[in-house]
Amino acid sequence: GYATLDIQRERRKGFPEIIFGEGKSKEHLLGIFERLMKFHQKVFATRVDSEKASYLMATLKARYPEEHFQYRDDCHIFYWISQDYVETKKHGYIAVVSAGTSDVPIAEEAAVTAELLGCKVKRIYDVGVAGIHRLLDNIEMIERSSVVIVVAGMEGALASVVGGLVSKPVIAVPTSVGYGASFQGLSALLTMLNSCASGVSVVNIDNGFGAGYYAATIMAV
Amino acid sequence: GYATLDIQRERRKGFPEIIFGEGKSKEHLLGIFERLMKFHQKVFATRVDSEKASYLMATLKARYPEEHFQYRDDCHIFYWISQDYVETKKHGYIAVVSAGTSDVPIAEEAAVTAELLGCKVKRIYDVGVAGIHRLLDNIEMIERSSVVIVVAGMEGALASVVGGLVSKPVIAVPTSVGYGASFQGLSALLTMLNSCASGVSVVNIDNGFGAGYYAATIMAV
Amino acid sequence: GYATLDIQRERRKGFPEIIFGEGKSKEHLLGIFERLMKFHQKVFATRVDSEKASYLMATLKARYPEEHFQYRDDCHIFYWISQDYVETKKHGYIAVVSAGTSDVPIAEEAAVTAELLGCKVKRIYDVGVAGIHRLLDNIEMIERSSVVIVVAGMEGALASVVGGLVSKPVIAVPTSVGYGASFQGLSALLTMLNSCASGVSVVNIDNGFGAGYYAATIMAV
Amino acid sequence: GYATLDIQRERRKGFPEIIFGEGKSKEHLLGIFERLMKFHQKVFATRVDSEKASYLMATLKARYPEEHFQYRDDCHIFYWISQDYVETKKHGYIAVVSAGTSDVPIAEEAAVTAELLGCKVKRIYDVGVAGIHRLLDNIEMIERSSVVIVVAGMEGALASVVGGLVSKPVIAVPTSVGYGASFQGLSALLTMLNSCASGVSVVNIDNGFGAGYYAATIMAV
Amino acid sequence: GYATLDIQRERRKGFPEIIFGEGKSKEHLLGIFERLMKFHQKVFATRVDSEKASYLMATLKARYPEEHFQYRDDCHIFYWISQDYVETKKHGYIAVVSAGTSDVPIAEEAAVTAELLGCKVKRIYDVGVAGIHRLLDNIEMIERSSVVIVVAGMEGALASVVGGLVSKPVIAVPTSVGYGASFQGLSALLTMLNSCASGVSVVNIDNGFGAGYYAATIMAV
Amino acid sequence: GYATLDIQRERRKGFPEIIFGEGKSKEHLLGIFERLMKFHQKVFATRVDSEKASYLMATLKARYPEEHFQYRDDCHIFYWISQDYVETKKHGYIAVVSAGTSDVPIAEEAAVTAELLGCKVKRIYDVGVAGIHRLLDNIEMIERSSVVIVVAGMEGALASVVGGLVSKPVIAVPTSVGYGASFQGLSALLTMLNSCASGVSVVNIDNGFGAGYYAATIMAV
Amino acid sequence: GYATLDIQRERRKGFPEIIFGEGKSKEHLLGIFERLMKFHQKVFATRVDSEKASYLMATLKARYPEEHFQYRDDCHIFYWISQDYVETKKHGYIAVVSAGTSDVPIAEEAAVTAELLGCKVKRIYDVGVAGIHRLLDNIEMIERSSVVIVVAGMEGALASVVGGLVSKPVIAVPTSVGYGASFQGLSALLTMLNSCASGVSVVNIDNGFGAGYYAATIMAV
Amino acid sequence: GYATLDIQRERRKGFPEIIFGEGKSKEHLLGIFERLMKFHQKVFATRVDSEKASYLMATLKARYPEEHFQYRDDCHIFYWISQDYVETKKHGYIAVVSAGTSDVPIAEEAAVTAELLGCKVKRIYDVGVAGIHRLLDNIEMIERSSVVIVVAGMEGALASVVGGLVSKPVIAVPTSVGYGASFQGLSALLTMLNSCASGVSVVNIDNGFGAGYYAATIMAV
Ligand SMILES: Nc1ncnc2c1ncn2[C@@H]1O[C@H](COP(=O)(O)O)[C@@H](O)[C@H]1O
Ligand SMILES: Nc1ncnc2c1ncn2[C@@H]1O[C@H](COP(=O)(O)O)[C@@H](O)[C@H]1O
Ligand SMILES: Nc1ncnc2c1ncn2[C@@H]1O[C@H](COP(=O)(O)O)[C@@H](O)[C@H]1O
Ligand SMILES: Nc1ncnc2c1ncn2[C@@H]1O[C@H](COP(=O)(O)O)[C@@H](O)[C@H]1O
Ligand SMILES: [Mg+2]
Ligand SMILES: [Mg+2]
Ligand SMILES: [Mg+2]
Ligand SMILES: [Mg+2]
Ligand SMILES: [Mg+2]
Ligand SMILES: [Mg+2]
Ligand SMILES: [Mg+2]
Ligand SMILES: [Mg+2]
Repeated sequence: GYATLDIQRERRKGFPEIIFGEGKSKEHLLGIFERLMKFHQKVFATRVDSEKASYLMATLKARYPEEHFQYRDDCHIFYWISQDYVETKKHGYIAVVSAGTSDVPIAEEAAVTAELLGCKVKRIYDVGVAGIHRLLDNIEMIERSSVVIVVAGMEGALASVVGGLVSKPVIAVPTSVGYGASFQGLSALLTMLNSCASGVSVVNIDNGFGAGYYAATIMAV
Repeated sequence: GYATLDIQRERRKGFPEIIFGEGKSKEHLLGIFERLMKFHQKVFATRVDSEKASYLMATLKARYPEEHFQYRDDCHIFYWISQDYVETKKHGYIAVVSAGTSDVPIAEEAAVTAELLGCKVKRIYDVGVAGIHRLLDNIEMIERSSVVIVVAGMEGALASVVGGLVSKPVIAVPTSVGYGASFQGLSALLTMLNSCASGVSVVNIDNGFGAGYYAATIMAV
Repeated sequence: GYATLDIQRERRKGFPEIIFGEGKSKEHLLGIFERLMKFHQKVFATRVDSEKASYLMATLKARYPEEHFQYRDDCHIFYWISQDYVETKKHGYIAVVSAGTSDVPIAEEAAVTAELLGCKVKRIYDVGVAGIHRLLDNIEMIERSSVVIVVAGMEGALASVVGGLVSKPVIAVPTSVGYGASFQGLSALLTMLNSCASGVSVVNIDNGFGAGYYAATIMAV
Repeated sequence: GYATLDIQRERRKGFPEIIFGEGKSKEHLLGIFERLMKFHQKVFATRVDSEKASYLMATLKARYPEEHFQYRDDCHIFYWISQDYVETKKHGYIAVVSAGTSDVPIAEEAAVTAELLGCKVKRIYDVGVAGIHRLLDNIEMIERSSVVIVVAGMEGALASVVGGLVSKPVIAVPTSVGYGASFQGLSALLTMLNSCASGVSVVNIDNGFGAGYYAATIMAV
Repeated sequence: GYATLDIQRERRKGFPEIIFGEGKSKEHLLGIFERLMKFHQKVFATRVDSEKASYLMATLKARYPEEHFQYRDDCHIFYWISQDYVETKKHGYIAVVSAGTSDVPIAEEAAVTAELLGCKVKRIYDVGVAGIHRLLDNIEMIERSSVVIVVAGMEGALASVVGGLVSKPVIAVPTSVGYGASFQGLSALLTMLNSCASGVSVVNIDNGFGAGYYAATIMAV
Repeated sequence: GYATLDIQRERRKGFPEIIFGEGKSKEHLLGIFERLMKFHQKVFATRVDSEKASYLMATLKARYPEEHFQYRDDCHIFYWISQDYVETKKHGYIAVVSAGTSDVPIAEEAAVTAELLGCKVKRIYDVGVAGIHRLLDNIEMIERSSVVIVVAGMEGALASVVGGLVSKPVIAVPTSVGYGASFQGLSALLTMLNSCASGVSVVNIDNGFGAGYYAATIMAV
Repeated sequence: GYATLDIQRERRKGFPEIIFGEGKSKEHLLGIFERLMKFHQKVFATRVDSEKASYLMATLKARYPEEHFQYRDDCHIFYWISQDYVETKKHGYIAVVSAGTSDVPIAEEAAVTAELLGCKVKRIYDVGVAGIHRLLDNIEMIERSSVVIVVAGMEGALASVVGGLVSKPVIAVPTSVGYGASFQGLSALLTMLNSCASGVSVVNIDNGFGAGYYAATIMAV
Repeated sequence: GYATLDIQRERRKGFPEIIFGEGKSKEHLLGIFERLMKFHQKVFATRVDSEKASYLMATLKARYPEEHFQYRDDCHIFYWISQDYVETKKHGYIAVVSAGTSDVPIAEEAAVTAELLGCKVKRIYDVGVAGIHRLLDNIEMIERSSVVIVVAGMEGALASVVGGLVSKPVIAVPTSVGYGASFQGLSALLTMLNSCASGVSVVNIDNGFGAGYYAATIMAV
């Protein structure tokens, strides 16, 4: 068939398989979602556009009227948490910091992913280096976190600045926000890879999901 | 002057400033090294070639005959640990995994950095995907670590494979090992940024130092 | 005229000219298709979108009511096999392996091309390295094939892993599945070109057709 | 240790591990070479520069005075074939075609690799498209082969032309011969990936070894 | 104003200013077209899409009912030749050669431009290297021309092959036909810049206009 | 919230925060615009498409019927100047020079930005190097300015030529006008960065705003 | 001859022609230097390596024993100021800020160029964002300047941070300091072009000369 | 053997095969040179470094004491003209224009190539756009030529400017002169491909030979 589910992933990785919604037909998406529901208590898919989300919502609600499905249209995550699910929140929190307002959708993808994986999150948005006092005003709250996610487009300088100020591991997410020589996020990506401040690692352009997941992995160490 | 030392870094970041040895004259290197010795009990510099290392070694030994300096010529780190220094090793260990024999210098840069920052390290070298059973034979030791560093050049596939098998955060280090379309590490870098396995973050090409530092940051969470 | 058909290709290459459907007007496509029908018993076109396919289907059916035309909308191949055609299937089979569900359209382009060129095909889909046991479960069937086609996007690591496990020639097809630093398939392409496992060769990004054709060429050796 | 040998490779892949000589110290190279001699009857290393080769030659001759070692300085391959080894040459031959005289070193790397893997080879050198009659004069000998390797730098057009003329699988090797906008082989690489002729697959820039190996894999189908 | 016309260009360059239609509003286009009509007997604009063309046609016909305007929708050129214009055709002809059917629009842009600049043109289309006999069948007609324009996408090998066969200056036009690693014409561009055959110069990707103009410049030498 | 306004920017930078309209939802845009109106007497947003502009216009007019809002649809700037605002025009003027008619939208973005920041502007449009006398005719007016902005796409040569002729600082703005190997403005960007004439600095591709702002900064020195 | 001097440049540009020392033979360099001495009272050449400098020094001293020549080996500038020259220093000063110690050579090229063009300079070195308090400690001195030059390699974030804090025009100079994904300064270049802070313009990688010159041009407004 | 000479090239192309000296061993070079001497009256090789040139000179002089060999060390061309050779100079001349002094070696490669192919050449060097009057002073001599070669590095703007001023075909040669974002000639290459002036075609970076050859081809039309 078109899909070979990785049912053992929860055992191996601590978290079940999460569906990459982009480039899948809505029928395939539905098929995979339903099969995962058989094996897990929480299932979610990222990069689900609103059209596919409506289809999933309608079909799944019809088939599982008792169950609760959600679509976060600001970050394109579709998820289901079983009625039976009992959450055990991890200690500490993740700070999710964004440089601008335009980076918020990716920042939210990171934040919601981390929350779905059982972490607490604090959001500090639109504190980029063009007005650095906005960051400095929030630096204590960031330092008190366990892990920091920095989301920035254009030149992505915020990651280095945060990396220079806090002792916690910083996960940098370059975004495709910008134009011209930002080359769809390449500029921010290179900036973050070359950070002169230590303690910064990088995930793919616009990969809020990856950052949220990685932060949860660190919280679980 | 040519240098404005960041004496407060230890307070802010948990670790003192580490000197980037590349592109500095040997006199500048020496000057910075000595000044840092005044404020800290452990000082080290990365990317110090053997010529600069000899100069540092000779000059520093002459000036501080009581002190102990070391140069690791397999990974180009020069360091000093004060006689008075009392180490408190952190719990757990970091697994440093390399794909090939040619990646060992960068893997060692990561391992030695982490050790200098107070972490225990286990080395698993030359277990790339061309003979994947070599990795599978070692997978339990890797899973039992707290953080995993994967060092690989050429196509860098090892990072994804390890990422698919373990639950610990994986720090991927692309190396410039390879030729032709490896484009000095670009191929491995892109591979690692696009890992289909979750739980992988990336540092700069050949940045063993950054990976070792990042791992230590996670160990300190 | 707009087209100079290569009627002698079958004699030279073993297979007749196959039409590249992209960037041709539907009238040109039809004209070329019909002319090729005069000289061969099997004609097919790749990268035919559904609109052009409908036009071809309607027009050709009207003109050749006895003949049988087909459109595979999952991989955009339009073909005709003459009533008189007698197939002689080659010995052995080609294994077509895909990393994810999103790579299936390209994998199908490869599989259908190879079948139209007289080969048997076994499909092993969605067995990427994020859950490598899925591949290991199928490795014997892959090893028993004569040629292996590996289709993967994102970081494309599957090609190296398969290349490390089997003795058969592996044809790697990078796909444009992914986002950000996948750069429309560049990441997977570079990965595959730099495979540390030997026995891997590469075709263009999303070129399922080329891989299917190449496999058929090897089957004919 | 610095190396984890893949002794099972011969069982899995049909050929034992071949050493990648670049970026290894001469001591490591020697260590790996000797250990492989324990398990196989033929051992070889590619990309061994003349300095390392002299070291290997001197040391190994001293230790194994009965044995015969060879260094091919035109293509940088160092090898040993045990006295006991009995060759069984495969049927048919591989045609190795080069565009220019400057591509000969890579063409030889391909040819010698294939010969060491038990194949017969015919060489057709310096027949690039600037004087295409030189190719046409040799086309029958090329068509009668089982597999064709085409080695070309600069614009690499020869691969498409050969691909258009013969029915056998063509393995294209872009070389870094050229200057300016050849971008160290990128131009030839892209040419070959985009071949309008079918039946062409591609290996890394300057990867004569990979092409020779791949051809041997096809000969073994 | 938005435009500073270059009325002296005909005196300087031999041909009047030709309008680049892309990225101009239809009002600007019209304004410039009309003003040029005041100073010249032939005016034309390239890269005029069908919508702008309809607007120009309607408005100009209404204003100049005696005059004759033309739109070539296969190559997007809009032009006017004054009733009073007396053509003096240059001696000899330009051969316009295309690799595939999909390259015809750009080939026509070159051909029509050259014709509007007073040259004779012979068209030889779809004779790419996948079936090289098609080119060889036409090579005498190409050699008898004064200048050759070669239009090719994908790997663009045709330019080198023609360059190797004829003594006339070859103007190579890379097209954006292709996908994946053709990178919108980059592959063909690099191929043509690196031609191993001499006597080949190159214009921008998809720049049929530039090639036609350049050929006319040579015809005027 | 989604935005952390930088109210102190006027004190620090001399000009208040200017809104980057791209990639913000119209509600966010409105929210930010209104809040800035509380603190400043002039507010403007760049890269506001016509749809968002209509929404802003309608809503703001309804809420502040006394106030005057403007949308410049030729350069996508939306702005408000308080009734109470008293302008003090700076001495001297900025020359805004464009190479072609297609570069006018970006040139206008620069000119309008500079005007909103209190500067006088003279426009010299469509004087590119294809007809260099057009530039030479205007060179005195350009030299008499205090700062020069040069806006050019395609090969962007105009910046160097102006840089060679005048003594005033030249701010070069590459535009994405062009096709093929202009690579969306990369060609013009590299040209301008490599200017052989001194006294040229560069801003991002299509960044008319940045150039206008920078010119105003120089006017304020 | 090999050189056509631009004697009128001083009249046109305010400063005489400055020699680009790279890629010129030492004889050519000498010839040009001497001829310029005939027309101006100050002559200087950039990018003169120490070998060429010795040759110039020796030859010129022998020929003009009365005159004073200087070579700045930290930034590779060779210059002569006539005995008769009377300097009139411009009002105000330029702040030259460097991120790291390794950027000092380029920062000095900027500073010395500006000084030779009659400007006062203040140097603030090694105040990169890894320890941002070092910058904040100096921000008043920077703000009191007339123009700011920021020199930074690796990720180049310092330019944005300075741009966010001061009202003066910032000239950003990316340097090639770094390794891996810094791609010889590309990373810092893109960062600076995409600065989210306004008031930043950019010159070529390692172009300290260009920045110093540009600053002098602004000082002269 | 390592070379398959193209003896028929003179018949086909008007000029015999010219040897590409780069990347060939000196023995191969000699062998090819001698064999070509058997069939032609003029033989030359480009990109011959001084070491290979000495070897050729010594060996050939010894073997053919009657014959006259020459090495042009400013442009690395080695040639022989038979005593019996009778030149028939073509009508008209080629103008070779260089932007800077550093571009002279490539300009000379073009000039000498054209002369060896029987053309007259006029040289106009160091007339780049930084001081455009130097070009304007020479424009008549350029316009009176039959073909123009423009050689320029850095931003390469000179090609467009010349293209805008003359009616003759312009052959643009980008050079690798420059640093930083010139990317070894890429900047000049892109500039020239995107020339807003018509009548400009381009050859490879540093390909003076190709430009000289192409010009000779046009002279022969
Ligand atoms: N090998 C390395 N790669 C990247 N950054 C490094 C390396 N070694 C030291 N660093 C960092 O570089 C910075 C020092 O830069 P500098 O002031 O030039 O010595 C410090 O913040 C270190 O954390
Ligand atoms: N999907 C495809 N990708 C690459 N090449 C193709 C594809 N389909 C057909 N071709 C080849 O494209 C050539 C046809 O080009 P054309 O003359 O434009 O139809 C033939 O030589 C085919 O072998
Ligand atoms: N010239 C070469 N190019 C690419 N791969 C090679 C080459 N020579 C040997 N190899 C492969 O490199 C791998 C060995 O890597 P290593 O463990 O670093 O020696 C083996 O799997 C070989 O098949
Ligand atoms: N370091 C430098 N970087 C860039 N341009 C320079 C530099 N030094 C001098 N120049 C400029 O280079 C031009 C001289 O080029 P050339 O004719 O080759 O000497 C002059 O117009 C100078 O303004
Ligand atoms: Mg904001
Ligand atoms: Mg190994
Ligand atoms: Mg899956
Ligand atoms: Mg040859
Ligand atoms: Mg065709
Ligand atoms: Mg115009
Ligand atoms: Mg420092
Ligand atoms: Mg000069």
